[in-house]
Amino acid sequence: MNYSLVEGILGRLMVAYAAFMGAPLLVSLIWQEKSVLAFLISIVVTLILGVILVAHGAKDGRMGLREGFVIVAGAWILTGITGALPFALSGAVPTYLDGLFETVSGLTTTGASVIDNVEILPRSILLWRSMTQWLGGMGIIVLFIVFLPNMTGAVHLFKAEVPGPISERVLPRIRDNALKLWQIYLGFTITQILLLMLVGMTWFDAINHSFTTMATGGFSTKGASIMYYDSLGIELVVIIFMIIAGGNFGLYYLAWRSGVKKILKDVEFQFYLLIIAVSTLMIALSLWWTMGTGSGNSLRQALFQVVSIMTTTGYASADFNQWPSVSKFILLCLMFIGGSAGSTAGGIKVSRIILLFKLGWAELRRAIHPKAVINVRFAKSSVDPVVLNTVAVFFFLFLSIFAFATLLLTATGLEPFDAMSAVVATLGNVGPGFGVVGPMTTFSSINPFGESVLILCMLLGRLELFTLLVLIQPEFWHSRKGW
Amino acid sequence: MNYSLVEGILGRLMVAYAAFMGAPLLVSLIWQEKSVLAFLISIVVTLILGVILVAHGAKDGRMGLREGFVIVAGAWILTGITGALPFALSGAVPTYLDGLFETVSGLTTTGASVIDNVEILPRSILLWRSMTQWLGGMGIIVLFIVFLPNMTGAVHLFKAEVPGPISERVLPRIRDNALKLWQIYLGFTITQILLLMLVGMTWFDAINHSFTTMATGGFSTKGASIMYYDSLGIELVVIIFMIIAGGNFGLYYLAWRSGVKKILKDVEFQFYLLIIAVSTLMIALSLWWTMGTGSGNSLRQALFQVVSIMTTTGYASADFNQWPSVSKFILLCLMFIGGSAGSTAGGIKVSRIILLFKLGWAELRRAIHPKAVINVRFAKSSVDPVVLNTVAVFFFLFLSIFAFATLLLTATGLEPFDAMSAVVATLGNVGPGFGVVGPMTTFSSINPFGESVLILCMLLGRLELFTLLVLIQPEFWHSRKGW
Repeated sequence: MNYSLVEGILGRLMVAYAAFMGAPLLVSLIWQEKSVLAFLISIVVTLILGVILVAHGAKDGRMGLREGFVIVAGAWILTGITGALPFALSGAVPTYLDGLFETVSGLTTTGASVIDNVEILPRSILLWRSMTQWLGGMGIIVLFIVFLPNMTGAVHLFKAEVPGPISERVLPRIRDNALKLWQIYLGFTITQILLLMLVGMTWFDAINHSFTTMATGGFSTKGASIMYYDSLGIELVVIIFMIIAGGNFGLYYLAWRSGVKKILKDVEFQFYLLIIAVSTLMIALSLWWTMGTGSGNSLRQALFQVVSIMTTTGYASADFNQWPSVSKFILLCLMFIGGSAGSTAGGIKVSRIILLFKLGWAELRRAIHPKAVINVRFAKSSVDPVVLNTVAVFFFLFLSIFAFATLLLTATGLEPFDAMSAVVATLGNVGPGFGVVGPMTTFSSINPFGESVLILCMLLGRLELFTLLVLIQPEFWHSRKGW
Repeated sequence: MNYSLVEGILGRLMVAYAAFMGAPLLVSLIWQEKSVLAFLISIVVTLILGVILVAHGAKDGRMGLREGFVIVAGAWILTGITGALPFALSGAVPTYLDGLFETVSGLTTTGASVIDNVEILPRSILLWRSMTQWLGGMGIIVLFIVFLPNMTGAVHLFKAEVPGPISERVLPRIRDNALKLWQIYLGFTITQILLLMLVGMTWFDAINHSFTTMATGGFSTKGASIMYYDSLGIELVVIIFMIIAGGNFGLYYLAWRSGVKKILKDVEFQFYLLIIAVSTLMIALSLWWTMGTGSGNSLRQALFQVVSIMTTTGYASADFNQWPSVSKFILLCLMFIGGSAGSTAGGIKVSRIILLFKLGWAELRRAIHPKAVINVRFAKSSVDPVVLNTVAVFFFLFLSIFAFATLLLTATGLEPFDAMSAVVATLGNVGPGFGVVGPMTTFSSINPFGESVLILCMLLGRLELFTLLVLIQPEFWHSRKGW
């Protein structure tokens, strides 16, 4: 392991991260908020950490697979630890652990909150909260690659942060690729800000909500989330941009170069829209039938909530905790499925689910044709069995971690269904769950042990399990090179 | 498809099945119960069906893979349909569908009941109820193979009914093998009957409970299940035989020939005992800690319930619906895991879970050694990647069917957690679940649509999915030979 290189890169990342904290500092200065000191201290601490790491580390060097994993894992942990400082120091949260929960929830675009009343927070803290989501959405490392010199092996960083089942829409020139992705991301964000202002949102709310929509994060500046505005226009804009954010950004890049038809012809995108449509209709039907909600309102609430949950954004336009059982269960399933690969969404991902069903069907064919070689095809080409194997294992590991984390949460006294929903809401980077962690409540009732488990779930989910799990192998740390 | 052969075999099976109904008929005659007529009619109907099929079908012929699947599926469906007649005709259940639910629950050794008060049932009906479990436990077809002439292709029948992840503990002489399995099964059953009588059970109760223990079925002649007896001796005997029944009968056969050490050295058996031990300790701790139950009582209740649930038997010695959340969730996980492959238990099976964890670990190794060929070893030999693939797909299909069936049940108005527990209790062939289908209640509150879904779940679970799922492929039915 080339530890010097790891330190060098993480150090520069910390310096850049401190610079980003400058934005909320500026806001706190302009509005003369009490949080000025909190941001100043946070920036200084982060800078010092960065400088020490840079001084200790190497500027360049051979980047291997293992360095890639360590840097990405380290980046997410360090940005979480330092990003929590403004929350803790400003008194926005009672404990540092709460601050860490809020920050990791932000960076991983989960959107689960432990702050019961966000509307009393200073604007600077609200902005920083939204910024953590926006920065984490496209990937901290993917952003950072843009600023790095074109180093050999940067592809390992990219892969560790954006694993995804279908490999290699990634360009050989990794830095160009990262840059293009961020340009698209930024472009959508600015468009959404303008549209939200057009339908009546204030500029500050529009910026915050655009940050957290494009990241599929779901933090809101209002306690009642999007329900606060009670505006069809705002809901429509948010729905459209949530759908965009839950799609594959690599696909948007292709469309940018070769036409919008590419998007509509994409198998994953088609299924993604299909699942949204079917789920919306089923939930709307159940709301109309069971609760007697009008047909128009049923459709509106169902569409918003389906998109919000499936893209793992987690905004609420209604208290879906009160919805009929079947609607709740559909939403629960959508939390597991999540958005598209290469999107800012969490969950298992639509393309993995498609591949798993294809694999299942292939297995049924093999049962009656035991000697035939069965091919699984996706988007007109046959899929490498190694990829299929990885997808199947991913599914098992996702469910195993889900079960294990739920076990730990039930040990804190949470009822099984509440615990399950808290875990999938964090492991799938969704945000709100059901019961005690429903859309109209927060995670503040979870005890510190439970919070720690959920913080780990958020990180595991965001880095799609493997990037963190590889680190638990003793073999991983058998160093070939000294410190 | 050789339909004549299918008819011929299913016809003879029906005749044999009618003969088994003679036992409860005899009981009803001896005790002069009103159910005499019900059994007489049932036997006649089953016999006529059998004779028609035999007359229409062929006595012998080429048995292929597809004939094997159709015969096994057909056998389970027909024995369910005709076995329900005594329940429906005797008035033990209000509707025929309830009778079908009870019978399929029996044959698949699930043990879920729709009869609220079993203690008012005539003895003949109670015996038939227990007999369905005992017959289904080792496998209707496996039993039937014993009586069949040594036909070529019987191995396809065996495989379709006893799929299991680790192939080929099956002998080449399939009939001898089936005979040995039934001898062992019978031997254990008789031993348990004698032991239960020794610790104070009446002979009638002892026969019934031994039938349903060895089948890991869980039907009881008492409404309060084993809790009724409040006897440590009875609980211990039942625990021991549940553990035996949840182990691999192929392994017992090996041990019979080459010594008992074989059992203790078996990897799956070791893990099976380990999971029981760890779960028991955790639940005992939670009962002692949260509910203040004495340490001895906590251990006793925890051990009984862990073994009962993990072996998918489903007897209750306590109302675990009232237990702490963490205990309930552990039991829920055990419902998914189930017993050993080649046992009479349901669930995903311990060996599959072991293989999945090994596969997961291999995948983590591949992440840092992308070019290495990674081998998964089980019981000292490396496992065929095709088998691993099948296991991974099985896991995905099990969870998909679980989710889909739960969705259908929530549509009947059941709360998500109740619906989930009803589905896993039937798909895993366990019996009782939580909430409205808890150990002290029955499935009688489920509506007819929900009952039908759960009947399908029981069959899918008992035949380990594939045997029924292959039938949904249109290709399966493209006949190469005419009717």
